[in-house]
Amino acid sequence: MKKILAIDAGGTKIIYAVINENGEFLTEVKKTFTPKKIDELTNLFKQIISEYENEIHIVSFATAGAVNLNNTRVESSTPNMPLGYNSLDFSLLSKKPVFVENDANCAAWAEYKTGAAIGDKNTIIITLGTGIGGGIIVDGKLLRGKSGRAGEIGSMKINSGRNRICTCSRKDCYESYASGTGLKKTAEEIALNSPSFNTSIYKNKNPEDITTYDIIDGLKSNDEYSKEVFEVWQNDLITGLIGLVNIFDPESIVISGGMGQFINTKLIEDKINSEIVVSPVKIKLAKSGNNAGMIGSAVLAVQKY
Amino acid sequence: MKKILAIDAGGTKIIYAVINENGEFLTEVKKTFTPKKIDELTNLFKQIISEYENEIHIVSFATAGAVNLNNTRVESSTPNMPLGYNSLDFSLLSKKPVFVENDANCAAWAEYKTGAAIGDKNTIIITLGTGIGGGIIVDGKLLRGKSGRAGEIGSMKINSGRNRICTCSRKDCYESYASGTGLKKTAEEIALNSPSFNTSIYKNKNPEDITTYDIIDGLKSNDEYSKEVFEVWQNDLITGLIGLVNIFDPESIVISGGMGQFINTKLIEDKINSEIVVSPVKIKLAKSGNNAGMIGSAVLAVQKY
Repeated sequence: MKKILAIDAGGTKIIYAVINENGEFLTEVKKTFTPKKIDELTNLFKQIISEYENEIHIVSFATAGAVNLNNTRVESSTPNMPLGYNSLDFSLLSKKPVFVENDANCAAWAEYKTGAAIGDKNTIIITLGTGIGGGIIVDGKLLRGKSGRAGEIGSMKINSGRNRICTCSRKDCYESYASGTGLKKTAEEIALNSPSFNTSIYKNKNPEDITTYDIIDGLKSNDEYSKEVFEVWQNDLITGLIGLVNIFDPESIVISGGMGQFINTKLIEDKINSEIVVSPVKIKLAKSGNNAGMIGSAVLAVQKY
Repeated sequence: MKKILAIDAGGTKIIYAVINENGEFLTEVKKTFTPKKIDELTNLFKQIISEYENEIHIVSFATAGAVNLNNTRVESSTPNMPLGYNSLDFSLLSKKPVFVENDANCAAWAEYKTGAAIGDKNTIIITLGTGIGGGIIVDGKLLRGKSGRAGEIGSMKINSGRNRICTCSRKDCYESYASGTGLKKTAEEIALNSPSFNTSIYKNKNPEDITTYDIIDGLKSNDEYSKEVFEVWQNDLITGLIGLVNIFDPESIVISGGMGQFINTKLIEDKINSEIVVSPVKIKLAKSGNNAGMIGSAVLAVQKY
């Protein structure tokens, strides 16, 4: 059975472990911070690889950014990674085969092969965190598109009328409504416009200082304003999911990321199934946690090499 | 080379011809009206088939409605077809193999194999008519989903805030904004709300009587109100297309249907490419015209049989 050194390279930290082709961990997960300069990062990668190179068959990377169709380099700009990251040829880092894939795609593959979506040949994995990431499985294959960049779910537009500015500086991206950041923006908007704020436990707070966590706490305290904010946020989330379900007719949608713990999957499933024109979908929570990127990259790498 | 009797069965008319496996017509296209009762329709199908059965290898249908994964019957409700249409087993209509596929999917396949999207392994064909239909090609294969119903582009939601009622009775479907019907609804809304209507050539018309054709005529007369209506409509069209391009990262989007003739593909392409996070897309007009359903069903049928 093949052994893969799997490395998940994010803007803040790098985690890595040796995994077998079934996605099982053969070593503990190690963690280090991401250096700020490309030379330091390249050296760090080489150092990690040299530590394991003799005992493994493949090196796999899950990375931020869009990856080329050959799975050898990052092609998009990656603002959270060191400058020059997208000129790094990963295949030169090791004498063993090196495989690179986008982290959201890796996480999707992990859920499909070893997590919540096993057997669901058509499934969409959505990461609801600070932003929105996505990986899409179509008929048992990762949807990659002409250049490897498919699955940019967060950049769908859902509310062309509302003119909300996204962190990407575009208007009305799905991410600007249905992410954690979106919840905070909705909280601010509703504080400025709804009478529910006047009797809220947050009425003395500056609207722009209300956080995602305030709203989640407010729900537990049965605060009407927090409930209104959360419902608007959830409706925006559902709006995008309805579109995706009508387009893909998937067996399931798997929700991962920090916001996943706050949603009622059964309620969302029922609402979606009452509105779609395709056959019913299951809404599930992800199972692979923080290791999803490593697992997915390892299993995908074995498929290629 | 295989010969296929291709039948396009719509709510108003049925058209049919014998086609070869390259999508070339071997007979003239014949046309008849769609009977109102299922028995009459079944008999009409049998009669058409018996006329050609001895000289062809396969019978292919392009039909309204969602088709099962085996391509033998329609599974969704089909309000424009006779009652009982979705209990018809098409495979019993002929002693030759019978293949059935949704008409929008067939049209998409025709554009991919013989029309505007030849060589574009990832492409989306959108029919902009009274409603919006869609067929999606992913990595050279028709996107069908778990039950064969994928590609329901018209049922994406793009404006959860605007609460426009769609002909399907749901709110804010893409179809309710970006179809021909959507243009008429936008015309009515803007007549009621915008000062441009007061100086328009249509100012004496009842807003709900303004038609899609009025707006198109108004554009030619440089009428400001008509220009405003068309621009809002076009922005709604673009909003949905941006989402689709970010999701699929396709080589092209092909626009067919009656509204296609009124749009400026270059302008739309530039606007989309300035807003997407994937690599640039081409916007093309469809080439296969009214025969697309027949051509696509025939070519798909050969692939299966």
